[in-house]
Amino acid sequence: FINSGRMNGAGNLMDFLDEPFPDVGTYEDFHTIDWLREKSRDTDRHRKITSKSKESMWELIKSLLDAWSGWVVMLLIGLLSGTLAGVIDLAVDWMTDLKEGVCLSAFWYSHEQCCWTSNETTFDDRDKCPQWQKWAELMTDICLFMFLINSILGAGAYVLNYFLYVLWALLFSFLAVSLVRVFAPYACGSGIPEIKTILSGFIIRGYLGKWTLLIKTVTLVLAVSSGLSLGKEGPLVHVACCCGNLFCSLFSKYSKNEGKRREVLSAAAAAGVSVAFGAPIGGVLFSLEEVSYYFPLKTLWRSFFAALVAAFTLRSINPFGNSRLVLFYVEYHTPWYMAELVPFILLGVFGGLWGTLFIRANIAWCRRRKTTQLGKYPVLEVIAVTGITAVLAYPNPYTRRSTSELISELFNDCGALESSQLCDYINNPNMSRPVDDIPDRPAGPGVYNALWQLALALIFKIVITIFTFGMKIPSGLFIPSMAVGAIAGRIVGIAVEQMAYHHHDWIIFKNWCRPGADCVTPGLYAMVGAAACLGGVTRMTVSLVVIMFELTGGLEYIVPLMAAAVTSKWVADAFGKEGIYESHIQLNGYPYLDVRDEFTHRTLATDVMRPRRNDPPLAVLTQDSTTVEDVETLIKDTDYNGFPVVVSRESERLIGFVQRRDLTLAIKNARQKQDGVVSSSVVYFTEDAPQLLASNPQPLKLRRILNLSPFTVTDHTPMETVVDIFRKLGLRQCLVTRSGRLLGIITKKDVLRHMAQMMNQDPESIMFN
Amino acid sequence: FINSGRMNGAGNLMDFLDEPFPDVGTYEDFHTIDWLREKSRDTDRHRKITSKSKESMWELIKSLLDAWSGWVVMLLIGLLSGTLAGVIDLAVDWMTDLKEGVCLSAFWYSHEQCCWTSNETTFDDRDKCPQWQKWAELMTDICLFMFLINSILGAGAYVLNYFLYVLWALLFSFLAVSLVRVFAPYACGSGIPEIKTILSGFIIRGYLGKWTLLIKTVTLVLAVSSGLSLGKEGPLVHVACCCGNLFCSLFSKYSKNEGKRREVLSAAAAAGVSVAFGAPIGGVLFSLEEVSYYFPLKTLWRSFFAALVAAFTLRSINPFGNSRLVLFYVEYHTPWYMAELVPFILLGVFGGLWGTLFIRANIAWCRRRKTTQLGKYPVLEVIAVTGITAVLAYPNPYTRRSTSELISELFNDCGALESSQLCDYINNPNMSRPVDDIPDRPAGPGVYNALWQLALALIFKIVITIFTFGMKIPSGLFIPSMAVGAIAGRIVGIAVEQMAYHHHDWIIFKNWCRPGADCVTPGLYAMVGAAACLGGVTRMTVSLVVIMFELTGGLEYIVPLMAAAVTSKWVADAFGKEGIYESHIQLNGYPYLDVRDEFTHRTLATDVMRPRRNDPPLAVLTQDSTTVEDVETLIKDTDYNGFPVVVSRESERLIGFVQRRDLTLAIKNARQKQDGVVSSSVVYFTEDAPQLLASNPQPLKLRRILNLSPFTVTDHTPMETVVDIFRKLGLRQCLVTRSGRLLGIITKKDVLRHMAQMMNQDPESIMFN
Repeated sequence: FINSGRMNGAGNLMDFLDEPFPDVGTYEDFHTIDWLREKSRDTDRHRKITSKSKESMWELIKSLLDAWSGWVVMLLIGLLSGTLAGVIDLAVDWMTDLKEGVCLSAFWYSHEQCCWTSNETTFDDRDKCPQWQKWAELMTDICLFMFLINSILGAGAYVLNYFLYVLWALLFSFLAVSLVRVFAPYACGSGIPEIKTILSGFIIRGYLGKWTLLIKTVTLVLAVSSGLSLGKEGPLVHVACCCGNLFCSLFSKYSKNEGKRREVLSAAAAAGVSVAFGAPIGGVLFSLEEVSYYFPLKTLWRSFFAALVAAFTLRSINPFGNSRLVLFYVEYHTPWYMAELVPFILLGVFGGLWGTLFIRANIAWCRRRKTTQLGKYPVLEVIAVTGITAVLAYPNPYTRRSTSELISELFNDCGALESSQLCDYINNPNMSRPVDDIPDRPAGPGVYNALWQLALALIFKIVITIFTFGMKIPSGLFIPSMAVGAIAGRIVGIAVEQMAYHHHDWIIFKNWCRPGADCVTPGLYAMVGAAACLGGVTRMTVSLVVIMFELTGGLEYIVPLMAAAVTSKWVADAFGKEGIYESHIQLNGYPYLDVRDEFTHRTLATDVMRPRRNDPPLAVLTQDSTTVEDVETLIKDTDYNGFPVVVSRESERLIGFVQRRDLTLAIKNARQKQDGVVSSSVVYFTEDAPQLLASNPQPLKLRRILNLSPFTVTDHTPMETVVDIFRKLGLRQCLVTRSGRLLGIITKKDVLRHMAQMMNQDPESIMFN
Repeated sequence: FINSGRMNGAGNLMDFLDEPFPDVGTYEDFHTIDWLREKSRDTDRHRKITSKSKESMWELIKSLLDAWSGWVVMLLIGLLSGTLAGVIDLAVDWMTDLKEGVCLSAFWYSHEQCCWTSNETTFDDRDKCPQWQKWAELMTDICLFMFLINSILGAGAYVLNYFLYVLWALLFSFLAVSLVRVFAPYACGSGIPEIKTILSGFIIRGYLGKWTLLIKTVTLVLAVSSGLSLGKEGPLVHVACCCGNLFCSLFSKYSKNEGKRREVLSAAAAAGVSVAFGAPIGGVLFSLEEVSYYFPLKTLWRSFFAALVAAFTLRSINPFGNSRLVLFYVEYHTPWYMAELVPFILLGVFGGLWGTLFIRANIAWCRRRKTTQLGKYPVLEVIAVTGITAVLAYPNPYTRRSTSELISELFNDCGALESSQLCDYINNPNMSRPVDDIPDRPAGPGVYNALWQLALALIFKIVITIFTFGMKIPSGLFIPSMAVGAIAGRIVGIAVEQMAYHHHDWIIFKNWCRPGADCVTPGLYAMVGAAACLGGVTRMTVSLVVIMFELTGGLEYIVPLMAAAVTSKWVADAFGKEGIYESHIQLNGYPYLDVRDEFTHRTLATDVMRPRRNDPPLAVLTQDSTTVEDVETLIKDTDYNGFPVVVSRESERLIGFVQRRDLTLAIKNARQKQDGVVSSSVVYFTEDAPQLLASNPQPLKLRRILNLSPFTVTDHTPMETVVDIFRKLGLRQCLVTRSGRLLGIITKKDVLRHMAQMMNQDPESIMFN
């Protein structure tokens, strides 16, 4: 694990005792950082810059640049993630349409752009224009042979289009999974569980690297375009965090301090959600509520700035062609009524149940993938799921189109100009057609037809999403969850609308729905359902409601959304406290200490600390009687991350704590650079090494790497306090003492294992330090 | 300080050793709570309820009720604070108008309501209707004598109205200050500095009491109506917190735990801002950013709920008569242009300068009030300031009306129907009048006139606000600050508009302002200015922008607001890091550990701990060799809040920590209830007291009140870590050890004093523990 190449290259360090040697204070891969140490290192750095800044003009400028670097990084993150989101949107649009046909005037146009630029279409059928040709039409045009085959087969253009649709989908997903496998295995999944873990202080090298950024961006486009039941919103957060990490490397302030780096990443996550939904405030709250671990006020301001820049960059790219910031812009014309809270709360219950079902089924499937043969053939799995999805999705118009288009249509209120099947109401011929505020009308055959198709689409989405999330391609959960909720909500909405129309003499409808009035907006139900399902899966509440609020832009509908989101959370929490991201964190065994889990057991620090009763005694170093050889043996024989230093083995009074990595590096360095340090040299952690006879080997003074203020608790400290301390201070380990004597040590892993044990889970599921 | 009455009343406690005795674990007035202890007490309580709930159905229901009580409290807070805000709004409206005249049809109608209900007015002059009579008109109607006097004086109705206006103002403010003085001295000021301190864990008994609530509500109406330069927004937060405290007393979960109580108060603060501005999300962020100290995610959800309930309660009361939730509803029709960022940033600079000026001048004046004779005549001071305000305000139409009306008018875009002086533009006679989107026009004489009056109003507001804030009446800062900014902003806006109109060939205007287009919205400048000034005074950023965003309801104007808010914060921070609330906290010497102050000095725990080098040794107890008399002497001779317990005076190895209050209560209780406990009894903190001869006095076992897990740091711990620990864990004190030996103690007060010293401030300014 030790980067010896870098070690050897550091020959310019002359005075070993005064200069810190390289890599001291860095962490190994898959280890947890010590937040307190990172913080004090940053303060040291800051102090140095401030004192230097008084020396010269140049240093002053440097210190100002340093102070501004945070805002510069935010600006860059906002610009890049906004741009990437715009590019992804445009590319997904184009490639999704490519599955069905091509634009003859310019092949890089999507269906909508193709017909927008065409002058021959009227407003009414924007969807049909001569420039846009389906594959079958095109082929029959250019190739007589194909035409012949078609005629022989007898099924005509439909089968050919179907076949090509599936083929394109398979091609896209094959490309996506291959790219991920070959170039950046970390690019798969939604990335949010890992980002949560990273933000809590875990190191996964390369997870936010340049390759991951590049491959994730490309494969995200491919995966979404392939028509799989997945969204781009979660992965966009990962993409934004990669941008954040990329720009961190420009400034040593952030690249060399894992704690500061995480502040930037928190803000980047906010920018990611901001561009995913066009909701800057929602993004900041998402980062605060869902993702971040350490979120000081300074980060709040900077996150907000990054989120705004990202949103406005996206808007100036204008990928949706409507200069709207938001993904699903909706405008409703009627208020909601108290009685409607009943269906809204029912939708909340549905969302909670869906969340529970999804999490359990998905986790069971992912566990099976991890433990059985299934996990060995990721490409095959992706191909198979894509094939099934494409084959089943094409016949149903509501699953054939992209999921975000579907949600957009479901959210929409049926205006007078709407021509979709869902708005096929029977109009009162006596009425003039106002543009807004159309009264409730009886549903026509199109609506009933749509209801059937929507019901089928609902079942299809529910089942396929369970198998899709967790495959080895970039895949977000927001959009599929919202789609499930939106379909269910729209169905409920239409049902309530038709009930209100046909039975407006019933007591419940009497008070709020006169005949001829517009009482029920099915689109609102779709939106509430989407919020409920998303809430059930992720357990967000405030950020979810704010994101939805930014979509509708009015406080009017906040109460329905809030009611559904809270109901959904309560219902889902009743079956299990963990959201999908926490479940995946647990599945992967990451050392994540959730702020939301309340530890309420009565155990004490003494029950958790190691060594346990029958274990060998704690591995400690003494301050002035250990030799270099002893230390090396100890390092070789154990795999602890650090060792307490005591006065003597008899008194066991604690002096400090030394990290394994620092100790290894220091001894290696000393043996190379310092004359006279041999195996029998005594290691001194005291302030002054005694004057020794010349015949004795040169002592090795290591007070420099000794942490003189290790964190201690007494053995009587309740574990709830210990957990609190670990969480709030971001500790890596904590020493346990009783009246000054060192008794044992508690590491973050011990805490997590103990918590798992207390909740009757397998303590061995926590895998990393 | 000890409530001995309550002590004596606790005769039902039979077994002294097993049952906790009353008041143990409570705090004295003006002391700081220990967050960790409160948290573990709540976990104990929760554990008990959970284990009991399995015993019977009734206990299960009780445990469910307990789990839901948090939401019930939020609902109640929302309802009550929404109602109070509505009542205050209505009362202020009526009483402000009462200064000028009265409604003949119903004296309890305000001017607007009076004329709304009148059928005789047209839309154009809503302000004039026969039912509304100014005092002078009314008097001349009913009293010939007055008419004669008027005729003699020659000045006519104007002087009489002027005189009565001043008289009413004096009456209102006299009533307000007298009520505050007599019934609830804590009802004065804005309350936010104290609430910040209370939320950080300080106890001020009665500050959030029922009397304070009642008197603050009444006097707030009086103070605002008197026309003083103050707002009701800050005090509304105090009122909402009083509501929160009131409802806490309904549930022992909250009333008996100071930590849990503070969670409720945080949410109440959010509800307060929510009703003050009609901005629920802004309220939650205000509570998070500005007020709260400990803000777990659970509180985030609950705050949001309380804020929503409060906002909707207020909306159903509908005090503004427009079924709008927000205080200043604005709708602009034109976008902003990049070049306008220059004046916006200049407004930000102005806001920052105003913030600095205001804070310095106001603190200097308040310090003078505290230290000189001035503070002894609060009633006289209020009367004098009110008199000056009223006399100077009446002649200027922009200061005569209420400040929120003024702001509202300044924010407004000049529509076609607007008839105010500020909208007196010269219309192009050739143009038809569209309702929206009026192009830029040259200013008419009314606008120039208004500009002069506004300039005078600006100077007046700036000066008088400095003297008003901090007087012994309820007074908020939000509205006066916003007024200053709005006036400055509107002036700048009109200037830019006229420049753009008259010089549209200048390069800067050429690109974005064709002649005949509507380029500049002076109302937007007013809004940006208001945000900048408010930001300069309070140093809010995100919550400020979100509140403003909720006022306009569009993301469109977030960039100008953000630019101004951040500029203003930077400019103000350059002159001093503290906002007005922090400055007042410091002025009052409250023990507030600001999360935003970064501690960057190099000191160690050993430099801060007591005893200092030449002090007498630390007052400690030993675990098994102190007598009751020794303890009593120690308590009498010192005023420490607690004492460390060590193994023996020789070894000085730490066992635990005991609170002074608990010790006093325990000994008092034991002397009363337990036979054989006399002055020479030995106090045992060990697990078992030794078996003694019958002739020896009965030992007193006090392990029960001993905290076995006191917080310790080593003497080498950097102070920045210690400060971090105090902040994050909410400690009251921390013991300092070196290799297991107790060296000293650091209390929160020590930390604060040290921080003040490091910043070259007077360490003696921190007054409380």
